[in-house]
Amino acid sequence: MKGWLDDQTLPLLARGCAVLGTGGGGDSAVGLMMARQAVADYGPVPLLDLSELEDDALIMPCGSVGAPTVGIEKLENGDEGGRLRDRLEEIWQRPVAALMSSEIGGSNGLMPIVWAAPLGLPVLDADCIGRAFPELQHSTLELAGISASPGVMTDERGNVVEFRAQSGIWLERLARAATVTFGGSASSTEYTLTAGQARGAVVMNTVSLAIRIGQLVSEAPEDPVSTLIAALPAVRLVTGKVVDVERRTTQGFVRGAAVVDGLGEDRGRVIRIEIQNENLVALEGGQVLASVPDLITVLDSDTAGAIATERLRYGQRVTVIGFACAPVWRTPAGLALAGPRPFGYDFDYRPVEELADARL
Amino acid sequence: MKGWLDDQTLPLLARGCAVLGTGGGGDSAVGLMMARQAVADYGPVPLLDLSELEDDALIMPCGSVGAPTVGIEKLENGDEGGRLRDRLEEIWQRPVAALMSSEIGGSNGLMPIVWAAPLGLPVLDADCIGRAFPELQHSTLELAGISASPGVMTDERGNVVEFRAQSGIWLERLARAATVTFGGSASSTEYTLTAGQARGAVVMNTVSLAIRIGQLVSEAPEDPVSTLIAALPAVRLVTGKVVDVERRTTQGFVRGAAVVDGLGEDRGRVIRIEIQNENLVALEGGQVLASVPDLITVLDSDTAGAIATERLRYGQRVTVIGFACAPVWRTPAGLALAGPRPFGYDFDYRPVEELADARL
Repeated sequence: MKGWLDDQTLPLLARGCAVLGTGGGGDSAVGLMMARQAVADYGPVPLLDLSELEDDALIMPCGSVGAPTVGIEKLENGDEGGRLRDRLEEIWQRPVAALMSSEIGGSNGLMPIVWAAPLGLPVLDADCIGRAFPELQHSTLELAGISASPGVMTDERGNVVEFRAQSGIWLERLARAATVTFGGSASSTEYTLTAGQARGAVVMNTVSLAIRIGQLVSEAPEDPVSTLIAALPAVRLVTGKVVDVERRTTQGFVRGAAVVDGLGEDRGRVIRIEIQNENLVALEGGQVLASVPDLITVLDSDTAGAIATERLRYGQRVTVIGFACAPVWRTPAGLALAGPRPFGYDFDYRPVEELADARL
Repeated sequence: MKGWLDDQTLPLLARGCAVLGTGGGGDSAVGLMMARQAVADYGPVPLLDLSELEDDALIMPCGSVGAPTVGIEKLENGDEGGRLRDRLEEIWQRPVAALMSSEIGGSNGLMPIVWAAPLGLPVLDADCIGRAFPELQHSTLELAGISASPGVMTDERGNVVEFRAQSGIWLERLARAATVTFGGSASSTEYTLTAGQARGAVVMNTVSLAIRIGQLVSEAPEDPVSTLIAALPAVRLVTGKVVDVERRTTQGFVRGAAVVDGLGEDRGRVIRIEIQNENLVALEGGQVLASVPDLITVLDSDTAGAIATERLRYGQRVTVIGFACAPVWRTPAGLALAGPRPFGYDFDYRPVEELADARL
């Protein structure tokens, strides 16, 4: 066991998950409140290294699906994780050994803890993306050839839907339709796998990474933004003010864009961030500063607290940073699944640090 | 065994299902082609009386779900029924003994035959409505307190979705969303039940009834419309010409209205028929001539062939008839589920024959 997810570590984890959420993954403050309550009610949750599980141990990747704007208001009931676990165990006819975040970003970095606590199960120090992405097939497990099906989804009313889809994309389409029917958000598990399959397929140590990020910004009250940029390391894309936010909740997603006007040494610069739940692309005068699969995070310039896309509003003083995704996303297969083109952009991916060097 | 569903009986059944479809249930011509092909490939299908099944025999109610406009073009693959059966047998851990139409109307009166033939299974001489209705919870099995869940749905690509919904209405919402995702139509089974549960809960002998209707209109070449009206018996609502059709395919349904101008002795009369897949209400100058749950069917005035809502067009010479639904739909519970009010109309139900008498 690597440690406990408890009242000390959870607030740090939440801060880190917000940074890794790249604007999405759900509101980490909501996830933090639920995780603290779960830990208060049922005790701390063990954080496990993947190496501690036998090859045939069953892992349940899980999280919330839907529009983060909805997730703020439409809360879980608390028993969703139990229902997902029960269905998986019936399907696989074996016990679930550990829960894992489908994505480490936003509240989804905390949801497995909310569900693991009452079930008395550990959470793995890993996730299936290394950030947050808007659609279910955006998973390193898709890249590893693990089947997304059977996927199971539930809502706070107790409805359960099970998918045996022909592909990860079909699972996404069907799950998204169910999510919209549920009112815009739902709880989900997909890409069920064994610990043996997980080795080399998941992104390792991302819970620890998120906690370290949280520690870093908490312990640097002087200039947490610079501290974070140096540590990740990240590229500072702009420091300025949010001057425009376009945001609509549609078809189970938050879509839109935000515009940041430069301040101080960045005065005169105008950066546009395009959004599908997460920050997808940062543009300046039509030039790409950073794009998926790299992470683009909008930080509060004073606190380095990451601002989720559903919380962006006029006047916020922000520093926008870009940093490298998990290496697997930079492979041809990774870019074919979650590079700019599958998101509808007509340009090729270039790493954020390369784009920064080119601008020097 | 009551008889064989074969090349002789299928065309008669299709004509009868069109009449009982009350405009919906899918195009009976498409269902007929598929059923004839299935019977040509695999041999005739036995028609079974419910009394021939042991109490614990498992029955699979089934059919297509979606907008009939889509069903004309987006055909089944043929193996959908097998997939539904396989999933049901896995869920219930017992063999399916017989298939049954979820609704006897339109192509849905024929789909169980399409699927039963390759599976070597019989079809029951019964259905779950006694007509066609647009939504899945519109079922006498809902009235009988049988759970709609687990429901299973599949498409021609092989995707399978399983629902464990909190109610028949939640099943409908979730299944409709999956149907739209599949492209507007899908194959479905829900309200799985045993023969013991079926006794007293299903509408009996509706396959035989549809065949008899088909025989009747086929054997009365002189005036098949009058023959049918006398035999059902039905009320003639109007004889005239279709002068306007409003029809849109939206959210998995066909919605709209048709206007029939009277001809001959009905000259000067204008009847409006409102549609949600099926003909819901017939109105004349704001007065109700007939409404759900009673059946409203638009017949070709020459052939007595029933015209489905997706086939209505300007200039058709038609006779619109109304006739009594299965008695269970006229009970308070039946009307609460499928009377005018649950369809959004602000008037109370009155039986079509009573409305006709009041007009005399």
